[in-house]
Amino acid sequence: MAPRSLLDVDDLAPAELVGVLDRAVAFRDALPSRSLLAGVPVLNLFFEASTRTATSFTLAEQRVGADVISFAPGASSLGKGETIADTALTLHGIGVRVIVVRHHESGFARRLADAFDGHVVNAGDGTHAHPTQALLDLMTLRQEFGRFAGLRVAIVGDILHSRVARSNIVGMTMLGIDVTLVGPATLLPDAFASHGVRIERDLDALLPSLDAVMMLRIQRERISGGLLPSLDDYTQRYQLNRARLRSLRNDAVILHPGPYNRGVELTDDVLDDPRSRYVAQVHNGVFVRMAVLDLLVNGAAVAA
Amino acid sequence: MAPRSLLDVDDLAPAELVGVLDRAVAFRDALPSRSLLAGVPVLNLFFEASTRTATSFTLAEQRVGADVISFAPGASSLGKGETIADTALTLHGIGVRVIVVRHHESGFARRLADAFDGHVVNAGDGTHAHPTQALLDLMTLRQEFGRFAGLRVAIVGDILHSRVARSNIVGMTMLGIDVTLVGPATLLPDAFASHGVRIERDLDALLPSLDAVMMLRIQRERISGGLLPSLDDYTQRYQLNRARLRSLRNDAVILHPGPYNRGVELTDDVLDDPRSRYVAQVHNGVFVRMAVLDLLVNGAAVAA
Amino acid sequence: MAPRSLLDVDDLAPAELVGVLDRAVAFRDALPSRSLLAGVPVLNLFFEASTRTATSFTLAEQRVGADVISFAPGASSLGKGETIADTALTLHGIGVRVIVVRHHESGFARRLADAFDGHVVNAGDGTHAHPTQALLDLMTLRQEFGRFAGLRVAIVGDILHSRVARSNIVGMTMLGIDVTLVGPATLLPDAFASHGVRIERDLDALLPSLDAVMMLRIQRERISGGLLPSLDDYTQRYQLNRARLRSLRNDAVILHPGPYNRGVELTDDVLDDPRSRYVAQVHNGVFVRMAVLDLLVNGAAVAA
Repeated sequence: MAPRSLLDVDDLAPAELVGVLDRAVAFRDALPSRSLLAGVPVLNLFFEASTRTATSFTLAEQRVGADVISFAPGASSLGKGETIADTALTLHGIGVRVIVVRHHESGFARRLADAFDGHVVNAGDGTHAHPTQALLDLMTLRQEFGRFAGLRVAIVGDILHSRVARSNIVGMTMLGIDVTLVGPATLLPDAFASHGVRIERDLDALLPSLDAVMMLRIQRERISGGLLPSLDDYTQRYQLNRARLRSLRNDAVILHPGPYNRGVELTDDVLDDPRSRYVAQVHNGVFVRMAVLDLLVNGAAVAA
Repeated sequence: MAPRSLLDVDDLAPAELVGVLDRAVAFRDALPSRSLLAGVPVLNLFFEASTRTATSFTLAEQRVGADVISFAPGASSLGKGETIADTALTLHGIGVRVIVVRHHESGFARRLADAFDGHVVNAGDGTHAHPTQALLDLMTLRQEFGRFAGLRVAIVGDILHSRVARSNIVGMTMLGIDVTLVGPATLLPDAFASHGVRIERDLDALLPSLDAVMMLRIQRERISGGLLPSLDDYTQRYQLNRARLRSLRNDAVILHPGPYNRGVELTDDVLDDPRSRYVAQVHNGVFVRMAVLDLLVNGAAVAA
Repeated sequence: MAPRSLLDVDDLAPAELVGVLDRAVAFRDALPSRSLLAGVPVLNLFFEASTRTATSFTLAEQRVGADVISFAPGASSLGKGETIADTALTLHGIGVRVIVVRHHESGFARRLADAFDGHVVNAGDGTHAHPTQALLDLMTLRQEFGRFAGLRVAIVGDILHSRVARSNIVGMTMLGIDVTLVGPATLLPDAFASHGVRIERDLDALLPSLDAVMMLRIQRERISGGLLPSLDDYTQRYQLNRARLRSLRNDAVILHPGPYNRGVELTDDVLDDPRSRYVAQVHNGVFVRMAVLDLLVNGAAVAA
């Protein structure tokens, strides 16, 4: 049997996904033994710069006792004309059992997983997927509401370039969450409705009905100049600010994958708002990643 | 109570500073248990390149059993427009307890410490401070002389751009050391006398009276072209060389924070001189850093 | 006695070399205790980018329990005008016991070893030497044939720029292997025959007689434009492809140090060929490196 990888959220069956969240909660309540992945070589291969996600994965790997090896390959052997298949063969031969990979190309993680006889965890590939981010968002929602089915969640902003949005759409619809996407047509084409989620252009009309709103950063680095919305127009229609915070229910929560662009998708008021769950999200991220590693390497997260 | 940080030497009371040195000596005599900081995530965040200081901190962290995570962030999330406050919030949420930070901006370590709900160790911020370097210099002086009060120490060279000089001035005056600064006016403005230390332009007149002389590198990378002294003029007046070594007492010692610029602030003769304490300095550095980590995380280095 | 280093294969006596391979096989059969190098600080200093070799060394170091510190120094203190001697003095003072170094300058590892009061392992210096690669090749050959003396091995391609070739020539001739070098005159000057090995320009005539053929990558990054052979001409004469595979004996093996340049020195057929030993090579590499570290630090790999 081929080793399991986590390339997107739907690599997990719904019951398994919930099992991972259960395991993550258990790890948050009491750190597991470092014998969980003792002696298992885990390679962090971050082709895109990252401090937040790389730190979170590294800490998760250390806490389950893995042998952690980290590279930020620039002009490394991949630059000498080597194919992904050859790199995968080499790393497996050396003894690497798990690769945590971030890459600017959508689909890179899958190409690596197809070639690698070990586990691959997608830590973000282009605009495609970022499954552990979606899992930590789901863990945070469950912590808040104790359920998924019927929750009303809006994801707001640059959906087109967001791997976080894509993975959350996959995971949330799988669990029965009612997802609405909000943003300008340039950053949220109508085609997204085909994922089984609604599209709404008017954030103000939507806000009072939501259990959670997830605000996204505009990924300037992925947008060609002409398509970038005017900042004035964008903030007027989609920024979460003091006025819009008043429309949000008291028991609703605000999510954000970070990093923030204060003054663009949100104002300082949001970060000070008691409904903001940013810290809970990043805190949960480490435990979700521990649980994913445990599932992939040791299996059986679900008592089915 | 806010977690303690070490941003400059005066974050320690004099008795505490001595307590840290005592602890460092104890660690040098016998390595402590790796349970001292077991499971404590320590993040090395070096925005400025470093091999020497980063290696020393890393080794210190490993020897007290911390979970070490190291980044040399270039275009990482800080480059995506994130504020220091948001980075600090994120890293704390992830679980980082200690950040060891080096940055080219003076004051960066304090800004990070103000925002971070954990311990910050300043590993050098711009031209401002480098407290663990000063502590290791003090440890080396005490090892040599058994006391601080009344010692006569000169710091020679590019005082203006030296965080090492600044932190040593703070620490040495705190402990009653008699400090004289020596250098050309462009690299040592008269204003430095206001720190309670004397300024002397004539190194030769001073040398015979000293217990220790600390030679500094000219920080070319921080000096705009026009202000750089002529090499001939500089070496003639301030270089420690064979001739000047003869003026130095036999029981005096020579300190240097490294890296050397042979042929500029000193000649090869200095490095071969039995009064040079460079190796003792770097050796002591690891134990001082272990002691600082122990104090910040575990407290109570002083039996007051 | 000065600490031992491994700068090239001939730093080992023949019996010692075989002892290292024995030790490596023993480690492959059963991982040793992590107390083997417990608490020994090992610094990976890779001035040239590397994923493959750096991962292999890191994993080897972790498996023998060393304290691993890794740097890819660019503009670090060596860039501040520091000499190798001063860097070596500093790193020893800090407590580093072993330096694993890769550098683009031939001879860099030796210059470091001359200055460093600890062990140096050459992980590749310019076009000069790469001894652990040669050791893993020898380990793979012995695994296959059970002996060295009288084996007929050809090394094919860009011999001139290959540190892998140079170290293998040293090691193979030491052990009585019959070595033939094959390549165009621009990449294989006649002078190489002086190493006690034959030169052959006609690969096809040689192939049927070989026990092993080692194919090398053309090191484009080290070759100035005019000397680069025409790809058509090169592949026609020296590429290992389907036609030439038919000339190779069934019990012969194919070695390659990686990374491959598919379509240049070999075609996809080679990689799928059952005689290819690439995976065995990289797998053996980790155990050879463990054995080298054990020999240098703990000594006595040979019961003489």
